[in-house]
Amino acid sequence: MPKEGITPRAKDYAQWYLDIVQQAQLADYAEVVRGCIVFKPTGYALWEHIQRGLDDRIKATGHENAYFPLLIPKSFIMKEAEHVEGFAPELFEVTQIGREELAEPYIIRPTSETIIGHFYSKWIRSYRDLPLLINQWANVMRAEMRTRPFLRTAEFLWQEGHTVHATEEDAERETLMILHDVYADFVEKEMAVPVIKGLKTEKEKFPGALRSYCIEAMMQDGRALQAGTSHNLGQNFSRAFNITFTDQHNTIQYAWTTSWGVSTRLIGALIMSHSDDEGLVIPPRLAPTQVVVVPIYKNDEERSAVMGAVAQITAGWKGRLRFKVDDRDNLTPGFKFNEWELKGVPVRVEVGPKDVEKGSVALARRDRPGREGKSFVPQAGLTERIEQLLEEIQQSLFERALKFREERTADVTTYDELKQQVERGFARAYWAGSSEDEKRIQDETRATIRCIPLEQPEAAGRCVYTGKETTRQVIFARAY
Amino acid sequence: MPKEGITPRAKDYAQWYLDIVQQAQLADYAEVVRGCIVFKPTGYALWEHIQRGLDDRIKATGHENAYFPLLIPKSFIMKEAEHVEGFAPELFEVTQIGREELAEPYIIRPTSETIIGHFYSKWIRSYRDLPLLINQWANVMRAEMRTRPFLRTAEFLWQEGHTVHATEEDAERETLMILHDVYADFVEKEMAVPVIKGLKTEKEKFPGALRSYCIEAMMQDGRALQAGTSHNLGQNFSRAFNITFTDQHNTIQYAWTTSWGVSTRLIGALIMSHSDDEGLVIPPRLAPTQVVVVPIYKNDEERSAVMGAVAQITAGWKGRLRFKVDDRDNLTPGFKFNEWELKGVPVRVEVGPKDVEKGSVALARRDRPGREGKSFVPQAGLTERIEQLLEEIQQSLFERALKFREERTADVTTYDELKQQVERGFARAYWAGSSEDEKRIQDETRATIRCIPLEQPEAAGRCVYTGKETTRQVIFARAY
Repeated sequence: MPKEGITPRAKDYAQWYLDIVQQAQLADYAEVVRGCIVFKPTGYALWEHIQRGLDDRIKATGHENAYFPLLIPKSFIMKEAEHVEGFAPELFEVTQIGREELAEPYIIRPTSETIIGHFYSKWIRSYRDLPLLINQWANVMRAEMRTRPFLRTAEFLWQEGHTVHATEEDAERETLMILHDVYADFVEKEMAVPVIKGLKTEKEKFPGALRSYCIEAMMQDGRALQAGTSHNLGQNFSRAFNITFTDQHNTIQYAWTTSWGVSTRLIGALIMSHSDDEGLVIPPRLAPTQVVVVPIYKNDEERSAVMGAVAQITAGWKGRLRFKVDDRDNLTPGFKFNEWELKGVPVRVEVGPKDVEKGSVALARRDRPGREGKSFVPQAGLTERIEQLLEEIQQSLFERALKFREERTADVTTYDELKQQVERGFARAYWAGSSEDEKRIQDETRATIRCIPLEQPEAAGRCVYTGKETTRQVIFARAY
Repeated sequence: MPKEGITPRAKDYAQWYLDIVQQAQLADYAEVVRGCIVFKPTGYALWEHIQRGLDDRIKATGHENAYFPLLIPKSFIMKEAEHVEGFAPELFEVTQIGREELAEPYIIRPTSETIIGHFYSKWIRSYRDLPLLINQWANVMRAEMRTRPFLRTAEFLWQEGHTVHATEEDAERETLMILHDVYADFVEKEMAVPVIKGLKTEKEKFPGALRSYCIEAMMQDGRALQAGTSHNLGQNFSRAFNITFTDQHNTIQYAWTTSWGVSTRLIGALIMSHSDDEGLVIPPRLAPTQVVVVPIYKNDEERSAVMGAVAQITAGWKGRLRFKVDDRDNLTPGFKFNEWELKGVPVRVEVGPKDVEKGSVALARRDRPGREGKSFVPQAGLTERIEQLLEEIQQSLFERALKFREERTADVTTYDELKQQVERGFARAYWAGSSEDEKRIQDETRATIRCIPLEQPEAAGRCVYTGKETTRQVIFARAY
């Protein structure tokens, strides 16, 4: 049964998304600051859990965190030709400090390759200083025409890794390692969102990169969402910012750099992958609250018996489960069920007077609303049962999302098929076209090449657009 | 023995500080962005540990994190009269986005009372919405004439708590709870820095506050450093931003708000409280690395025996101690000792071929450099011994800092005594003067009233400046 205030997905997916954001109290529009949102506590808690999971992986793969200035001299952004073209229209400029007008304006970082490149050129002298493996958690700003909470906002929060290497091979290895071991691993295992790993086309790559890799996920309306990118920047930024080192043979060389980032967009990906017409659905490993316990009673006597049982049941949970006991006195159990469903808590435990008698509880899993997901189980062994159930929900969400993606992905061999397929999901096609062909297809279908998957077929086929023979397959889709 | 590159404290304390920041690789000057620094990995790791300790306490006392926009419409800052006067000269203004010039500029937040006040006025309707207890981790910018890494920089990182209450008493209780249970508790227990809790005078309080409380620490040159502030904002911001609620009697009331913050300044306080002429000294509870193990060997055979022993010694450490094994092959033990001393790692374990034979190690504590802090102990029971030693170092650092502060604090009864005492430390004095008197003393001595300590004497005395009788004592000091 759809909830009040939530437009059903089938009726209007875009509105459903906005309703979820609003009703689960994830964010508020900051109409007074163009294109910005407020991350409300429920939304920010999701980001904190995403940060923790990513930061652990970033550190485990040998990176350290640092922090570089928010402001960048405007001239810096001009030093890399593709970079300035990509970002110039989106820049927020600081032209005044107190009463003083600045001779050279600063820009608020839209990304930090340029300012970090400046410091790296000072810090790096010799091959012994390499690799340099640094990450930064920061806010960035880019003007956006149309904004949507989490998915596209003028200010957003992200991590940006910036590394320096002695050889192209080292830089390429880093770029792919981040894609596999940090981004895909985190998004699939913790967020339960399956991704396709691939290479961006020339048209879609990061301004200034040699090669951009990405992970692409499918949302419940069949559209693609780019969940993370990892760029091999070649020597483009090291030439622009003079990042050089003396090698083992005492020769001065330009270094090879990479950059990679994921952002608060991931909150949008999370919502649009798993949630339903009842509200948010959060995968257990990422859930700020994994289990909510709702006591049910009609009078003080029942209350005291039930709360006693609840205390016993939850006695061993601290440090094992992230849980809340909803003991608010002025609200009905039904109101509470509704609220926690809306907020996406994976498991609900209900304890009433009958449960106290029988030594049982009712267990409801959020990923299967209603009767189907509800069971009545003994209090004995409940902790282990819940831990198991959380694992099961985590798995089940991933498999459901994967099955959905597979059902909505089709091989297409003609342009007509491609046009039809991108209405409902991903179109996999052989591709030998140009950037101009890509542009034309985008204008006609609103679909873009999301990536050239790292997994490629053995056999050759004919390009869906030009008819040329090729072994390269790509994924076309409409994207967020 | 003082280290190369570090000016001894006795010679030039200000230069010593800058040398430590440089040599321990905590920060780099961002000369291209006025007044800003780069937090290098070693410095940022300290901030991460400070954040963790504070965030735990902030959440344990019932607050949730959220995130509000970086930019604030300029008109917002004008709505609270004292606030605008305090901050107007320091504001960074955004006047342009892409090619568009803005009709109303934005400012980069110098602090967020105004923008958060705007949202709170939308969110709060009834007494049931109160208290609202929110904290934000963020970067802020204020133009500064003279900058010093961590202590005073144009951009800095901090947390700012912003809470809303139904009554003045509730707001006052929150303000003081934060001062005691979050700030003083963290700074004394984790950073091992003793603080004096007190109230700011009218002249020194936060622009727009009803009352500002603070914790003040003494640095090794006898100067004061304000380590955290907690403000009862009264109804000033709720009137400026129309934060109202309907109370139990259905009457609309202005709410009572508080704000409180600590910043990356704390890194400066940490350095200046404990470090010495050999480099950084980090208290164990805050140290990113608590123990470093340095293997000592001359050939491959010795290396393999020693590394085997190191593996055995550290086998049970994961999850118990934060440690590093410095197995770099191209560096001498002496070089490594020097580097880890410089970086302030609390405990060093040395393992050589003789230790392998005897089942012993050498243990060196950073807070007592040289022979005095070195002991030779059996490998058996080493983990427990190190855990104990870390606790001992933590205690010892706190007690040393406390003793230092007490030695450098004196009661003064005449203005001449006050002038002399602020040359070397804190002057405690009875005070019944005006803000103008305070200003005059500041001009003549460069000392300010740091706070009116919460602990006050029973007996009355005569004001050090006006001679009037009063029971109020204050602390005068020169401050960072």
